[in-house]
Amino acid sequence: MFGLMQDRPLLISSLLEHAETYHPGSEIVSATCEGPVVRSTWKSLALRARKLAQALQKLGVKPGDRVATLAWNTHRHVELYFAVSGMGAVLHTVNPRLFPEQIDYIVNHAGSTVLLFDITFAKLVGDLRDRLPGVGHFVALTDEAHMPAEAGPALCYETLLAAEEGVFDWPVFDENTASSLCYTSGTTGNPKGVLYSHRSSVLHSFMVCTVDGLALSSADTTLLVVPLFHVNAWGMPYASAMCGANLVLPGPKLDGESVYKLATAETCTFTLGVPTVWLSLLQYIENTPGLSVSDLPFTRLMIGGSAAPRAMIETFEKGGVPVVQAWGMTETSPVAAVGNLLPKHAALSQEEQIDIKVRQGRAVYGVELKITDEEGATLPHDGARSGDLWVRGPWITRGYFGGEGGEQLDADGWFPTGDVARIDTEGYVTLTDRSKDVIKSGGEWISSIDLENAVMGHAAVQQAAVIGVPHPKWQERPLLVVVKKPGAEAEPKALLDYLSERVARWWLPDDVVFVDALPHTATGKVQKLKLREQFRDHVLPTA
Amino acid sequence: MFGLMQDRPLLISSLLEHAETYHPGSEIVSATCEGPVVRSTWKSLALRARKLAQALQKLGVKPGDRVATLAWNTHRHVELYFAVSGMGAVLHTVNPRLFPEQIDYIVNHAGSTVLLFDITFAKLVGDLRDRLPGVGHFVALTDEAHMPAEAGPALCYETLLAAEEGVFDWPVFDENTASSLCYTSGTTGNPKGVLYSHRSSVLHSFMVCTVDGLALSSADTTLLVVPLFHVNAWGMPYASAMCGANLVLPGPKLDGESVYKLATAETCTFTLGVPTVWLSLLQYIENTPGLSVSDLPFTRLMIGGSAAPRAMIETFEKGGVPVVQAWGMTETSPVAAVGNLLPKHAALSQEEQIDIKVRQGRAVYGVELKITDEEGATLPHDGARSGDLWVRGPWITRGYFGGEGGEQLDADGWFPTGDVARIDTEGYVTLTDRSKDVIKSGGEWISSIDLENAVMGHAAVQQAAVIGVPHPKWQERPLLVVVKKPGAEAEPKALLDYLSERVARWWLPDDVVFVDALPHTATGKVQKLKLREQFRDHVLPTA
Ligand SMILES: Nc1ncnc2c1ncn2[C@@H]1O[C@H](COP(=O)(O)OP(=O)(O)OP(=O)(O)O)[C@@H](O)[C@H]1O
Ligand SMILES: Nc1ncnc2c1ncn2[C@@H]1O[C@H](COP(=O)(O)OP(=O)(O)OP(=O)(O)O)[C@@H](O)[C@H]1O
Ligand SMILES: [Mg+2]
Ligand SMILES: [Mg+2]
Repeated sequence: MFGLMQDRPLLISSLLEHAETYHPGSEIVSATCEGPVVRSTWKSLALRARKLAQALQKLGVKPGDRVATLAWNTHRHVELYFAVSGMGAVLHTVNPRLFPEQIDYIVNHAGSTVLLFDITFAKLVGDLRDRLPGVGHFVALTDEAHMPAEAGPALCYETLLAAEEGVFDWPVFDENTASSLCYTSGTTGNPKGVLYSHRSSVLHSFMVCTVDGLALSSADTTLLVVPLFHVNAWGMPYASAMCGANLVLPGPKLDGESVYKLATAETCTFTLGVPTVWLSLLQYIENTPGLSVSDLPFTRLMIGGSAAPRAMIETFEKGGVPVVQAWGMTETSPVAAVGNLLPKHAALSQEEQIDIKVRQGRAVYGVELKITDEEGATLPHDGARSGDLWVRGPWITRGYFGGEGGEQLDADGWFPTGDVARIDTEGYVTLTDRSKDVIKSGGEWISSIDLENAVMGHAAVQQAAVIGVPHPKWQERPLLVVVKKPGAEAEPKALLDYLSERVARWWLPDDVVFVDALPHTATGKVQKLKLREQFRDHVLPTA
Repeated sequence: MFGLMQDRPLLISSLLEHAETYHPGSEIVSATCEGPVVRSTWKSLALRARKLAQALQKLGVKPGDRVATLAWNTHRHVELYFAVSGMGAVLHTVNPRLFPEQIDYIVNHAGSTVLLFDITFAKLVGDLRDRLPGVGHFVALTDEAHMPAEAGPALCYETLLAAEEGVFDWPVFDENTASSLCYTSGTTGNPKGVLYSHRSSVLHSFMVCTVDGLALSSADTTLLVVPLFHVNAWGMPYASAMCGANLVLPGPKLDGESVYKLATAETCTFTLGVPTVWLSLLQYIENTPGLSVSDLPFTRLMIGGSAAPRAMIETFEKGGVPVVQAWGMTETSPVAAVGNLLPKHAALSQEEQIDIKVRQGRAVYGVELKITDEEGATLPHDGARSGDLWVRGPWITRGYFGGEGGEQLDADGWFPTGDVARIDTEGYVTLTDRSKDVIKSGGEWISSIDLENAVMGHAAVQQAAVIGVPHPKWQERPLLVVVKKPGAEAEPKALLDYLSERVARWWLPDDVVFVDALPHTATGKVQKLKLREQFRDHVLPTA
């Protein structure tokens, strides 16, 4: 027997319509590639999104077509989010920090027919365009006065919009229709395409707006540091429309100074991003006389994408900025686990609270997690055993665009994350590794992430990565690769002594090497694959 | 093109599984019909719900079967919510305050095959059972020691549970499957059945847990005053499981003293109910030396179901208990509009804030509202024009159980509420009437609710209702029917003078009558239909 409820699909256009009707004056403040800060509102953004939908229709964009962007966080990129998905086409956000050959691979693989780009990427587009045979239209996200020459022939975004009236009824269609497409970071291999639906995007937004999710509300002003070109900026454009939150978009400038100035000038209450941007922000504050973390207006700051180092969490928390760590993947829309404290944790000391905040969070409602051993048997959530992490839920992918990699789910519908984790009795996940990065020493696993977290507490360490290198007796042993803080000094022995008080004896790296920089992916993650290659022939003193 | 997200249905069982896994220790505290308060947790409730599902299966309950309850707010009733819907059957909550003939009409109309009842209703069941030929099993919600004789042969709930192990996998099925059934209050006619689905219940729960919805969270302890037998207690069992909130259930005792004591003893942070229960609570506090509204531990108190009188809102607010008014119907699951203040309203004075709180709230995301004039043309949201209110969304009904009343939606999928309202520029709805209660005087509408709200501010007035009575010249003119406060005195003229300063001259009632009590429906609403009948032959002095 079926219920007798209305058959209304969950569509991204309904988010914008709600924002326009119920929060018309909530602000969208955007830095731009041209320079000035542009102030607008959900009401005017909704009108421009309708104009954009009309313009794209005239360019021949049809339901299901992929429309690609190479763009920073600006109001125009947010307009594209709503216009493209709203009209039934698929927004394909391309990460401009990928290598050029990855970019053309991705755009061609997705079959995108229109490419909209920020003027900062004009030269990149000019270089790439011959290798993008499927792209029929190039559109520069700017006005006539700033049209770049290097991109080659391109349409002007503002001119396209100016030609339209903005009278457009968002079509109603199946909520399982594809809405956007994003490729993974390529940390462990080639980037793979994840194809989101309207349904998954709206359900994920609901979660973001719940108190026990990210508690996003109409009272928030979010500094959107996490890029719109990766995993829908963690779903924030959609969730912000759902609750009518104000959005502050930093444009191309993500250095510590720009982020600090925008956050304080706009009194942002919430922000979210990967550890590397927070590192720049903290360095800027530390190096600028008169500034302090406690000047930051955030009521909470979210960190995800890579493990948040304990020292970073401590600096924020001690400055009065509560940190929330979250875990997710391109494949999970991305928010799957959130590190909110439980009501009972209010009574803990700050140190004890930080013990919890270094973990990757608890599964939100809508997401199920399980960990399994090498035989596939489900492991208990005892905080001790770690195993392969699997995930299930309505905003989790079931496979990749173009069938890449074949069937992904197990018989019960679980998706393998490629992460290795333990889960404690309260449900907090601790990522101990990527399964590809796990160090297998004498048949036992050593967690590279635990080792990195531990050594990051040393005063001389700016960044650290631990990888396994071949060892004649133990198959693999850990090698510690360190970037020192500018001007800091440290001998390998000092770091190993420091570690020996913090980890099991047999986990201690067999060697330490210092480098000037670690290889990073486009989304700011350490590329261990590259590191492993680089140190493939490294001979351990113990070997 | 469809997205590649997992096809996971939104099922009520997933709410319970989340609560059990992530909030096992959150409390369910329940007063009982037997007397003692029973303390349990989501973990133990989940186990008992599985046992109950096993027991019901053995009684022959199959997917789609209707399982009826005649019960107060207790832990057992919450167990039924999850067990019956979770196993794919339909929980049919029957309002025990209806007239006996309405009850048997409803149980038979729904085709319920099992009836579970609280021992307080044993006699009622005994009287009714011969008229319930479809009910194969009667189950008393109690243990062997308290089995009532008056009900006739019945099974014992605790004995059924004790026989089971609680090993039961919740089945996975289409999210549009019917989950529960509730009949309307019968204020304007015969009660009609609304059939909810798993999908609508889960989506409604998401909204309840959003900051801009009811902001329910794991930090809340909800005193569930609103009955589980009407509109799923405003969806609270589901939403509480979604976020792992604590639930406090008052059982059969809803008098002011019991509510006050339970709220303070359990430090409840949130509560919700209809105006009549808050009237009892406020009267108890007022009449008990040493007590004050400011002793109430609520961080917010929700009022819905009927208009919240301004004086009531003022008393709570001045005692430091923020009030949130909400509007909804059995047909809307029920929460459709919520009267949260907007961030910018924080700067208003308390009086100005109360001016907003007397309204029925703004549509939450997921619910669309429109008002139309008598020709069906959509009216602007200008705070001036009032018209028929229509509603649309995934937790709004599209028709009644058994096809009662035929097709309900208009061509664009809107459901007619039967309420008349205006909507202001900020989106706040003000209900001015039921369309059946509207007073048509000389072709113009007079709002009975506005008149009632105004006169309720008079010190001598306990309750008031305004109805239209026939008038030779104006077709209809308003008659004011008043219940005075105990011991208070007031002449008709004094009330009319009081009103004349507050409403338009031509709205002034043509007459005032005093009565000892107003006729109320089972859910505490004034039965204007009855009043109109009662005063059909009333001759107005102006006639
Ligand atoms: N809070 C966190 N702590 C540690 N690692 C995290 C955290 N959040 C995310 N991650 C890591 O990021 C991964 C998801 O990143 P993303 O989807 O951007 O691509 P990627 O996995 O880095 O790249 P690829 O899948 O192409 O190799 C997770 O699988 C996890 O390893
Ligand atoms: N905050 C409120 N202020 C005024 N009236 C309200 C409010 N909330 C709900 N109502 C009234 O309650 C109605 C919904 O009540 P319910 O579904 O319990 O049954 P009913 O409409 O009273 O009965 P029936 O539909 O059988 O006549 C709404 O249509 C509206 O008239
Ligand atoms: Mg990955
Ligand atoms: Mg009704």
